[in-house]
Amino acid sequence: MNAPPDTGLLSPVRAGTPVEEAVADTAWAQAMLDAESALARAQASLGTVPRSAAAAITRAARADRIDVRAVAVSARENANPVVALVRELTRVVAADDPGAAEYVHRGSTSQDVLDTGAMLVARRALELIGDDLERSAEALAALAGRHRDTAMAGRTLATQAVPTTFGLKAAGWHRLVSDARDRVERVRLSGLPVSLGGAAGTLAGYLEHARCAGSEEDGGATGFYLDRLVEAFARETGLARQDLPWHALRTPVADLAAVLGFTCGALGKIAVDVLTLSRTEIAEVAEPGPQGRGASSAMPHKRNPVLATMIRSAALQVPVLAAGLTQCLTADDERSAGAWHAEWALLREGLRLTGGAAHTAVELAGGLAARPERMADNLRPAAAAVTSERVAAVLTPHLGRADARALAARCAAESARSGRPMPDLLAREAAVAREFSRARLAELCDPAQYTGAAGWLVDRAIGDAATGPAGLRDPAPR
Amino acid sequence: MNAPPDTGLLSPVRAGTPVEEAVADTAWAQAMLDAESALARAQASLGTVPRSAAAAITRAARADRIDVRAVAVSARENANPVVALVRELTRVVAADDPGAAEYVHRGSTSQDVLDTGAMLVARRALELIGDDLERSAEALAALAGRHRDTAMAGRTLATQAVPTTFGLKAAGWHRLVSDARDRVERVRLSGLPVSLGGAAGTLAGYLEHARCAGSEEDGGATGFYLDRLVEAFARETGLARQDLPWHALRTPVADLAAVLGFTCGALGKIAVDVLTLSRTEIAEVAEPGPQGRGASSAMPHKRNPVLATMIRSAALQVPVLAAGLTQCLTADDERSAGAWHAEWALLREGLRLTGGAAHTAVELAGGLAARPERMADNLRPAAAAVTSERVAAVLTPHLGRADARALAARCAAESARSGRPMPDLLAREAAVAREFSRARLAELCDPAQYTGAAGWLVDRAIGDAATGPAGLRDPAPR
Amino acid sequence: MNAPPDTGLLSPVRAGTPVEEAVADTAWAQAMLDAESALARAQASLGTVPRSAAAAITRAARADRIDVRAVAVSARENANPVVALVRELTRVVAADDPGAAEYVHRGSTSQDVLDTGAMLVARRALELIGDDLERSAEALAALAGRHRDTAMAGRTLATQAVPTTFGLKAAGWHRLVSDARDRVERVRLSGLPVSLGGAAGTLAGYLEHARCAGSEEDGGATGFYLDRLVEAFARETGLARQDLPWHALRTPVADLAAVLGFTCGALGKIAVDVLTLSRTEIAEVAEPGPQGRGASSAMPHKRNPVLATMIRSAALQVPVLAAGLTQCLTADDERSAGAWHAEWALLREGLRLTGGAAHTAVELAGGLAARPERMADNLRPAAAAVTSERVAAVLTPHLGRADARALAARCAAESARSGRPMPDLLAREAAVAREFSRARLAELCDPAQYTGAAGWLVDRAIGDAATGPAGLRDPAPR
Amino acid sequence: MNAPPDTGLLSPVRAGTPVEEAVADTAWAQAMLDAESALARAQASLGTVPRSAAAAITRAARADRIDVRAVAVSARENANPVVALVRELTRVVAADDPGAAEYVHRGSTSQDVLDTGAMLVARRALELIGDDLERSAEALAALAGRHRDTAMAGRTLATQAVPTTFGLKAAGWHRLVSDARDRVERVRLSGLPVSLGGAAGTLAGYLEHARCAGSEEDGGATGFYLDRLVEAFARETGLARQDLPWHALRTPVADLAAVLGFTCGALGKIAVDVLTLSRTEIAEVAEPGPQGRGASSAMPHKRNPVLATMIRSAALQVPVLAAGLTQCLTADDERSAGAWHAEWALLREGLRLTGGAAHTAVELAGGLAARPERMADNLRPAAAAVTSERVAAVLTPHLGRADARALAARCAAESARSGRPMPDLLAREAAVAREFSRARLAELCDPAQYTGAAGWLVDRAIGDAATGPAGLRDPAPR
Repeated sequence: MNAPPDTGLLSPVRAGTPVEEAVADTAWAQAMLDAESALARAQASLGTVPRSAAAAITRAARADRIDVRAVAVSARENANPVVALVRELTRVVAADDPGAAEYVHRGSTSQDVLDTGAMLVARRALELIGDDLERSAEALAALAGRHRDTAMAGRTLATQAVPTTFGLKAAGWHRLVSDARDRVERVRLSGLPVSLGGAAGTLAGYLEHARCAGSEEDGGATGFYLDRLVEAFARETGLARQDLPWHALRTPVADLAAVLGFTCGALGKIAVDVLTLSRTEIAEVAEPGPQGRGASSAMPHKRNPVLATMIRSAALQVPVLAAGLTQCLTADDERSAGAWHAEWALLREGLRLTGGAAHTAVELAGGLAARPERMADNLRPAAAAVTSERVAAVLTPHLGRADARALAARCAAESARSGRPMPDLLAREAAVAREFSRARLAELCDPAQYTGAAGWLVDRAIGDAATGPAGLRDPAPR
Repeated sequence: MNAPPDTGLLSPVRAGTPVEEAVADTAWAQAMLDAESALARAQASLGTVPRSAAAAITRAARADRIDVRAVAVSARENANPVVALVRELTRVVAADDPGAAEYVHRGSTSQDVLDTGAMLVARRALELIGDDLERSAEALAALAGRHRDTAMAGRTLATQAVPTTFGLKAAGWHRLVSDARDRVERVRLSGLPVSLGGAAGTLAGYLEHARCAGSEEDGGATGFYLDRLVEAFARETGLARQDLPWHALRTPVADLAAVLGFTCGALGKIAVDVLTLSRTEIAEVAEPGPQGRGASSAMPHKRNPVLATMIRSAALQVPVLAAGLTQCLTADDERSAGAWHAEWALLREGLRLTGGAAHTAVELAGGLAARPERMADNLRPAAAAVTSERVAAVLTPHLGRADARALAARCAAESARSGRPMPDLLAREAAVAREFSRARLAELCDPAQYTGAAGWLVDRAIGDAATGPAGLRDPAPR
Repeated sequence: MNAPPDTGLLSPVRAGTPVEEAVADTAWAQAMLDAESALARAQASLGTVPRSAAAAITRAARADRIDVRAVAVSARENANPVVALVRELTRVVAADDPGAAEYVHRGSTSQDVLDTGAMLVARRALELIGDDLERSAEALAALAGRHRDTAMAGRTLATQAVPTTFGLKAAGWHRLVSDARDRVERVRLSGLPVSLGGAAGTLAGYLEHARCAGSEEDGGATGFYLDRLVEAFARETGLARQDLPWHALRTPVADLAAVLGFTCGALGKIAVDVLTLSRTEIAEVAEPGPQGRGASSAMPHKRNPVLATMIRSAALQVPVLAAGLTQCLTADDERSAGAWHAEWALLREGLRLTGGAAHTAVELAGGLAARPERMADNLRPAAAAVTSERVAAVLTPHLGRADARALAARCAAESARSGRPMPDLLAREAAVAREFSRARLAELCDPAQYTGAAGWLVDRAIGDAATGPAGLRDPAPR
Repeated sequence: MNAPPDTGLLSPVRAGTPVEEAVADTAWAQAMLDAESALARAQASLGTVPRSAAAAITRAARADRIDVRAVAVSARENANPVVALVRELTRVVAADDPGAAEYVHRGSTSQDVLDTGAMLVARRALELIGDDLERSAEALAALAGRHRDTAMAGRTLATQAVPTTFGLKAAGWHRLVSDARDRVERVRLSGLPVSLGGAAGTLAGYLEHARCAGSEEDGGATGFYLDRLVEAFARETGLARQDLPWHALRTPVADLAAVLGFTCGALGKIAVDVLTLSRTEIAEVAEPGPQGRGASSAMPHKRNPVLATMIRSAALQVPVLAAGLTQCLTADDERSAGAWHAEWALLREGLRLTGGAAHTAVELAGGLAARPERMADNLRPAAAAVTSERVAAVLTPHLGRADARALAARCAAESARSGRPMPDLLAREAAVAREFSRARLAELCDPAQYTGAAGWLVDRAIGDAATGPAGLRDPAPR
């Protein structure tokens, strides 16, 4: 292969981010080699493989001693890369220590190695993703705290509704990122097991070799041996123990799919909000950027919201990849002819895009600039409209609901048409003037004073740490 | 609408199963009305709505007093059905108690009602699904226990590999169904919150009305009021409390999507296995069936595996529906123009198909007939092949790995070609005959004696309860 | 079933639109009955079924004489509704004409009836969709013509780029709708065949019955008989002839999936543009609406872009449904156990959502109000920016590309900061002032004069018919 | 990047196949450079760029003169790789010919270059795919012809139905592959246009530069110039002309998505059939294979159907990728912030997997071995069952439908139970014995004589060329 097949050219969201190398083919090959050597050490710890052989295998099991491309191409002979990988590993071990070569892949099967390797790769990727989500969450909590009381237009169905605060919006982003992090952590900590099944999931090959090695003379010891083998393999790899061999029980992969889809969807929410708020006519936030970031090839003046764009590109891809992975739950027999094989590229791409999106989100969350003055400006012309809900509510006890809503709507419409202030229009009505002073009407029609429980919600969402000493801030909305 | 729009004609997997009615439009309308009345009662419990009004609203909030079809068609005016539903409810309340009509939907917004209603519908559907998964799990545990030691061909990449047991296969199905049930229960118990946000998620409308009702003179009491309102609403609906208003933070919907996709994928695994094992040439299992079940319109002799077929039809649909729902995480603004609206039908169909599949699986799991004699028959011609892994393993200490594998392969091939028994062929080899008696060779080549740890794995997977007194059974594989 | 299962409550995009009834269960049942009676008439026309029997079957084959719900529930016995439907039809025929009952479903199989029925339903739905797309295309062409020269901001990556025209935007929408219509028409006219295969796709049952009826004494006549049978069946149904029996060759369904996904995606493009342009801060278009359309349950002032919202809800759903259908191409054997069954509900929902979206788009396209003054207002503050590409281009021959771009960018930035007009800033530069008059600079910096070939492109896209007499309009951009 | 990121290790279906290099990042970079140089030559042909500059750009536009990885990583600054690519290209041109560097990317925009490049890559991939589909179709036609009259069990819902022929099965595969090829060719020949829009799709930049170059003094010439520019660009690239600038009108990408999903789904049908027929217990076909193909890492005896497995792995992935691409039709504004960016990796992966699957299918179709003796063996025990439809049909004129079906079913069941031949059982019935000789009953119960119109359908499907001289073969089924 002369041409670099994938340099990230078509995926800026992950090009050059740490996840890229963590899930590269070489990393995957290394993870499978790590599975092989961990298996040998686990068997050695139980006395069924010589310790010196396990040591030799461990020394040899390095991806840089293998021609990964040759393994990849050979994989077409078997529909999986492990056969060729084992051949290569055996060759390297034999070169170092001929006697140890006998013990490579002992009792094992391709899927044990590939699945255990996949879990190792996934763990490393989830570590990166979890850390980046944590960093984003912290940045978003700080952002929410800083803008706890910054009023802005709440928008529903694309149009201004009632006011909210930028703090509450950022607190919502924080909530989603935290939800994603919780789901990532749950899978990372307990959802990534070793895979140990042997040819058809009965562990027969492992047992047979163990018996031949003399450790198991007595059938009653089977469970004892296997418990210790699984435990040793888990310890050597750092992965969780398995419940049952899972060649055709794909819970770990489906759980991964769900968290990847969730994470990208959640980050996508932040991205679409940033894109909207970055619109020239709205301009309430600006992406961070070194000189040159977001430049256009055609237009000198442009500064594009490129971080949000890249995150959204992942959010549009990963949910469908996750669907592909979820379907692979429907695996045939003891090992599926195709459903297992379809997982690999989907999983890698899901991890890679999610890792890239999470990394990009750190930069976005950490540097996003809010522009409170624009938020205020955008609320102003719509002030009559966005406070009409409040006006209607306040008038209801005096006029009844229907009349109150009708009056609020009528005045808001006239204010929008004529530009006359809403309080003036309301004060013309005798029933209103009787009950409310001009000052009270002005207050009722001030968007910045109609943010409901936004401040309190922010405090609840981000906790004391992010908001500073409680004494400095009134938890009640004004 | 003259024509019944949906009688289940195109979805046998759920036609007439309990979930169908639980998620029907009428159930959805009732759930939204339940949300309205629960809100009124919650407000009444805090003194911001008269108790008599809440009682009148509760009495009126019955789907059979509403023209659901008229509401549905009116929904085109607002892109959601709640505006018309509130109008209808207000009309019915007013007919009973004119003064109470003022208090319908007080401070609220369409999305609070629709989302809370959706959670109520989802809870009911998840109850049905969870119960059915539990019943399937029990039946599968019993099946696994009964066939703990029933040898059958393990199959990988569509062809016979090494032996396994039908008990281990059923234990794997039990594991997947249990995994699905655990995920369903997690969401059912803590993932279905009330929705309370008001027009743009700040709760401003609720607060404003509460203040007007005189309960909140003091801004400092906001948090106290809202805490109690959310709590009372949760209590009245039986749903969980919310963290934040979640109009645009769609974690609950995405979590539902994940468990629905998972459940159908997991059930799909059972279905494809049953389909394979039901094949005329394999015939190792037979679906249960009353007279007529599985009949063909053309072929008098046929008995089709219809339960597995229906389950698989759901497994092919729900993962893509789940992808659609996951994408709706990327919701714009404080309420999305479209992403929210796309959820409803996808969620209902996902619940309905999953509910139908889970219900169908109970019947399948409870009545599936295993045919051990066919399992043995199918293993027999391949005996040489499926035990060749074992033979190779046992010969390895004597011949080295490469020679052992080559000899096993050569004898297995010759056995397949000539029909001569594998032990005879092996015994021809001096190196083998020296080390192994004919009896030992026969044992090594008996598929039923090469099921590895299958029995032990079954015991571990299904626990003592399902397998009966431990003393009656040897936990070690033979 | 006491509760109406589906009144459209969760799908405003199609509630009450014509497609809803066209694809309802009753319509589907009728279409399958139409397939049965067309088959009997086709056989009668070849002399293998008595004409009187075919007439009796035709008279009986009415969905209102059948209990569709009972058929639906019975379908669980066979995983498809045709067995019970045939039983019901036979019962009704027998009541009218006992002798004719023998000839119901003669030689046939469930899938022939269901697939032919599905094609009849799809044809009717595609007629509605095609007509609505045609009406939308006409309205969009007229809109593009009216606003051929209405300058507005072009927006890329969410921010203002260079100017464009509203006419060009509408011409693009017209293009997409026309592309959708072309694809719908292609499938409608030649992609919807009858299905005639018999039990396993060999047509054996039809032949055997024909031979028994005496029409085929000679084996050599097989092809002649079958050609005429397919032709007669196609003629009686109005569907296309089939190439081969297609029980497991699902090209027609996959082609339908592709056009449905395309159509909703294309309409979704219009929807997201309308949503953006409807934003309060942009306000360049307004949806049409009778009084009340788009009202909010909480906010008296709001007018929501509900048509675009509903269309987008379909655009978010149908592509994933289409993926589900495409996967069903991978159908097992001569008839799939599950992949066929998964198609039905997906196809109906895809047709229904697309039909609803297309119908909604007619209303949107026909009534969308453009607000040229807002388009001009939104361009004004960004004038310096959006014309900087042009300024750079014009200066390039004089300053070289790098200097030209730098100067344009510097002046645009200063103009944005200070509010000083771009022409003034440019005129300060000696090298510029030397080459360009102030009038020329003002022209270069006028966004309305930098719309490139927009007008010409509109003319090309929509043709003469839509734009009126060519003499009245200069085809060149100004 | 030290580690090779993608060597195909996780995608055996395409590892080392020609498509891999055709869609590699380097190929994509080269295609974008080809777009740049074709643009320069097109402009030169119209006199708006010096011919010498176009020649210099053409000489420089080679991917091996660019650091593709550096471009990829830089792409994060702009969310697309073209800005950095243009910078690199300009640098290389300037090194050769400083004056020419001014003319690189003149009037252009990133999307014109990336989209045109994508179409070039897609064309090359579709050529490979179309050729491979053609080769598969030829092989399958030959296979169908060879096995025109080879009877085998038809299977529906996983169980034996009535007989069919292997020729008809292969003819069905041929039909699907031909359908895929037709769809690929339609897109390849007319669905891949150049992209020429400029910054916001108005072509303003191109026009402005052209005017500055003096070629366009007269506004009326705009259309003339642009027609020639598009035509020249199409000629230089070999792509189709565009209708309108299509930055946000993604018909070409959606059409590609549809054909890729279709092709993989269609090939997946062949794969699942081959997997089923390769099952140990069925064994009616065998995959081709050099020594070692399909070997297992654990089991010496195994020969896995690896080609079908790999094809199926693609069939499980591409339809969901296609859904992701279809959703990108819903592109915002004049250029989407994210929907455009999501296309790239999805499209490449879709092309790559489809290309790999099509290539793998050539090998499968060309070498698949049918085993007629196994087909006959598998039919034998079910002979009574699979001909019971025929028996019922033939008895119907004598006994009436209900009695005929009941008798056929009863005899078939007894035959299955007792092993007694069906003809004997039928002959016991007086009403049967009266009408049918033993020889005729034996014929009626011979599966090989109940293949309906299979032979005639094969002839129709594959045409004379594949089946040889018509005179040698009776077109009627026996």
